[in-house]
Amino acid sequence: MRDAFHDDLSSITDDLVEMTRMTGAAIERATRALLDADQHLAESVIAADDDLDEMRRAVDNLVVDLLARQQPVATDLRSVITAMQMASDIERMGDLARHIAKVARRRHPEHAIPDELREVITSMMEAAVHLAKSTGTAISTRDVNAAMTIEGADDAMDALHRRIFGHLLDDTWKHGTEAAVDITLVSRYYERFGDHAVSVANRIIYLVTGRY
Amino acid sequence: MRDAFHDDLSSITDDLVEMTRMTGAAIERATRALLDADQHLAESVIAADDDLDEMRRAVDNLVVDLLARQQPVATDLRSVITAMQMASDIERMGDLARHIAKVARRRHPEHAIPDELREVITSMMEAAVHLAKSTGTAISTRDVNAAMTIEGADDAMDALHRRIFGHLLDDTWKHGTEAAVDITLVSRYYERFGDHAVSVANRIIYLVTGRY
Repeated sequence: MRDAFHDDLSSITDDLVEMTRMTGAAIERATRALLDADQHLAESVIAADDDLDEMRRAVDNLVVDLLARQQPVATDLRSVITAMQMASDIERMGDLARHIAKVARRRHPEHAIPDELREVITSMMEAAVHLAKSTGTAISTRDVNAAMTIEGADDAMDALHRRIFGHLLDDTWKHGTEAAVDITLVSRYYERFGDHAVSVANRIIYLVTGRY
Repeated sequence: MRDAFHDDLSSITDDLVEMTRMTGAAIERATRALLDADQHLAESVIAADDDLDEMRRAVDNLVVDLLARQQPVATDLRSVITAMQMASDIERMGDLARHIAKVARRRHPEHAIPDELREVITSMMEAAVHLAKSTGTAISTRDVNAAMTIEGADDAMDALHRRIFGHLLDDTWKHGTEAAVDITLVSRYYERFGDHAVSVANRIIYLVTGRY
């Protein structure tokens, strides 16, 4: 039989998994808005980020409430604190999707992404969606092996980030400084999205194994 | 007479203030390394960031320990949780200083910053140092008015960030794409440094007033 503490923690965990689902959807839609110069889609991603912020505040409040009522110690206490820290990382992943949508909105009706970079940006989106999904799985299962795959998936994201820089610093770059600035920022946003997934994974690994 | 809880919280607060001092020093030294293309100084900023990471982990452990031993509720509980969240923001400010130092190191022996941008980058450093100091003051005093000045100081940082973009997007930009990419990232790092100071300020305001 489950006790009240584990029921509450399980409910917080469900919220975190839902937040990872929302960030995955957000970065996928933000990328579509960017690639298609779709202003309406960009606006909808920007607006939807409020829901993630709200959900993160709700998780913080649930955590404080749980701590006050149940006063957990040892691993239970660590689990609750870690949940709050993960909510912060996941909310930030949503912010990064919103930043990508804002670049699409700012450049509309122009396309921020030149044709020859569409493929690598699409790969970054796929990597980000995969990272968001893996993060949700690692949170719900607390499986250290699942968490450890996230670092490898983020290495793929970092390689894409370097590929973008390879294009930007190539002598044949012909899209001017404004495009270079936008793409630098966009690429950085995907890279940071991956970093936060790794941060969540490391928190799970530390929680389960006690090691960084 | 003070009780054990307030002694512990006061010790955590001292650590947070020390962390803001360290981030202020880090971003000042990182900027000097950037402006002077000083590789040794850049290396020393990068190495020193480990101390901040270590200190953040120590604060997290103190918080968990305090929660387990003292089981605070209500405002005391909120104060402890907020301290942990502030440690996360301040550690991130240190990461951003390290990122700036890494740009200096990567471009050495070249200068990453063209002459006409030295003044605005110097102003960004001054704004960042001021923000780090104000953040420390707001944490130690829990003075809502002090915390509220931080948002205004960050507006000045945002204006400098826009000035940088004005230079980059000016038709007369003649330093090429590599310099534009580096400066885009560097400017973004200062801007994010300010955002984290605002985040700390907002946490203090919420803690004291219960309002965002």
